[in-house]
Amino acid sequence: MAHSVEKVAVLGAGSWGTAFAKMVADTAKESASGVSTVLWGRNEQRIADCVATGRNEAYFPGVALPESLKFTADLKEALTGADIVVLAVPAQSLRTQLEVAKQWIEPHAVMVSLAKGLEQGSGLRMSEVIAEVLQDGAASASAVEQRICVLSGPNLAKEIVAEQPTASVVAASTEEVARRVAEICACSYFRPYTGTDIIGVEIGGLVKNVIALCVGICEGKNYGDNSKASVMTRGLAETTRLALALGAEPATLSGLAGMGDLIATCSSPLSRNHTAGRLLAEGVQPADLPKVMSQTAESVKTAPVVAELARKHGVEMPITEAVVAVLSHRVKVEDLAPKLLGRSLKNENASRA
Amino acid sequence: MAHSVEKVAVLGAGSWGTAFAKMVADTAKESASGVSTVLWGRNEQRIADCVATGRNEAYFPGVALPESLKFTADLKEALTGADIVVLAVPAQSLRTQLEVAKQWIEPHAVMVSLAKGLEQGSGLRMSEVIAEVLQDGAASASAVEQRICVLSGPNLAKEIVAEQPTASVVAASTEEVARRVAEICACSYFRPYTGTDIIGVEIGGLVKNVIALCVGICEGKNYGDNSKASVMTRGLAETTRLALALGAEPATLSGLAGMGDLIATCSSPLSRNHTAGRLLAEGVQPADLPKVMSQTAESVKTAPVVAELARKHGVEMPITEAVVAVLSHRVKVEDLAPKLLGRSLKNENASRA
Repeated sequence: MAHSVEKVAVLGAGSWGTAFAKMVADTAKESASGVSTVLWGRNEQRIADCVATGRNEAYFPGVALPESLKFTADLKEALTGADIVVLAVPAQSLRTQLEVAKQWIEPHAVMVSLAKGLEQGSGLRMSEVIAEVLQDGAASASAVEQRICVLSGPNLAKEIVAEQPTASVVAASTEEVARRVAEICACSYFRPYTGTDIIGVEIGGLVKNVIALCVGICEGKNYGDNSKASVMTRGLAETTRLALALGAEPATLSGLAGMGDLIATCSSPLSRNHTAGRLLAEGVQPADLPKVMSQTAESVKTAPVVAELARKHGVEMPITEAVVAVLSHRVKVEDLAPKLLGRSLKNENASRA
Repeated sequence: MAHSVEKVAVLGAGSWGTAFAKMVADTAKESASGVSTVLWGRNEQRIADCVATGRNEAYFPGVALPESLKFTADLKEALTGADIVVLAVPAQSLRTQLEVAKQWIEPHAVMVSLAKGLEQGSGLRMSEVIAEVLQDGAASASAVEQRICVLSGPNLAKEIVAEQPTASVVAASTEEVARRVAEICACSYFRPYTGTDIIGVEIGGLVKNVIALCVGICEGKNYGDNSKASVMTRGLAETTRLALALGAEPATLSGLAGMGDLIATCSSPLSRNHTAGRLLAEGVQPADLPKVMSQTAESVKTAPVVAELARKHGVEMPITEAVVAVLSHRVKVEDLAPKLLGRSLKNENASRA
């Protein structure tokens, strides 16, 4: 693990992958560390355009990316010699892509997950999917786990590309690995805090998408800030309950990767999950969301998996259950309000219904 | 304490007092409880206008208030026979007004504080000010304390008057007293949760104004949602540290009276504290705020008192300290950013600087 970092590969040239790669290249320049950064995307034409223009017009039109940032559609080229591999691919395709990538991943490379979701079918968190794929045939399971890192926080990619001041959390099984990853992205506009609560960071990042979808519905139905603040508060409470049941630390959920990420996502009209909720409130059928939206709203896939995980651990998640009920046509968006704001007088902490 | 509630007096005909009085009258009507509600304001002309029009045009133009709601500028009339007295007056004038009101307050009346702030000079919370004034000459201090209740949550008055679904927290030293107060305002659009953590509810409600002022500055300086979410997250963390040092329960700060209220206030362009921050960012001098704003921004007075209380208890509150530094001209708003988002790589929970 004592390899110095000379090359960072970012897999996935969507908005977050592109923003992250820019940040790594900016950090290398600011600190004169000599770290080289390569951004891999599977769409050859789009990558050729990035190479030609120095921009990723599909996501950030007009934004000049750092000159030192390389682009490639060749996975082998991206991964060879990479000391840190950043995974910025959609949650549901992470396993498939990693199965292909695996053969070229350096045995010492630290894997950083930016993906937010639970795998459909297995119900696994992204760090667990990475561990499962890399452990297959590897000498030691614990050696693989020590190489896995997650990053999450109030990180709207568009603002990061605009170099707006942003903070985030990097968690790995040891502070040392988290710090190595923090060092490659700690530039003038990005402050990564380190930690070791991988579960808390992942659960905070993925359940917030489900809560954001619910807040989007409230917004589409013209509920006020009082209602939305209540849904966010009680949404974080149920997220925390699930995270604690899985072994996370409460401070993580009260921190940037929990509360911070939830607020940023719910404040932004740009958030896909938030937008999906607004569209549902306006009458779009759940099955038609992929047709109406250009980018994936991860929560549509993740919500039922979260609800299942919660049931398995005996955790009550009324907001998540309400979202699942809407997505599966069991409840109309019009009938969602009474489920969110019950009627009987109760102690706030005794019941969360 | 077994008196049934027949009359509720709301003192203070500003926005929150008027909204609360409407809610109590609506609850009485919906539940056919026969509870009578009176709203007291000290401005005789304004009260005469309310009586004549059935509206409080100064705060909610065009909104018809319930026909059963009475208005008076006569304090004795308002308080005589009142089983519950709701205090909706500004924090810094609560003591003076209560000293006058005291002679007419029924000895069994439950006092409900809606005021948010710390008293300048004494540094006392509003429930402590009420206790101090009422205990003066009273037979038993603990009997007085049992009659004191506080209510706080994500409660933008304008939305409540528009009957938007809203939740809140009512805390008293016993669940029984909290429940009595909850019952007078639990109408179709308002859900009061009960609790016993008076300190947590008060600290959450008053420090959030200081954090909202800071978020207002960020907004005025065109910071993005990532930065604002970070300030809110770390702001709630420092609020929680102070509250715990004073004896509060962590769940209260993660709940509606902590996180919920903070989010609603920071989301609303209507919030006075939020607006004060924006004005400061735009170059208004702290001393000129009262001239520019029609309503008091409580945080301008409360922030230095909070900072002092924190220092006394050895609690670090970097965001509050930064706001105090701006208000006292020691730091320019332009130089606030580096104080909010430090530069060294740290464990998120090890340091909050």
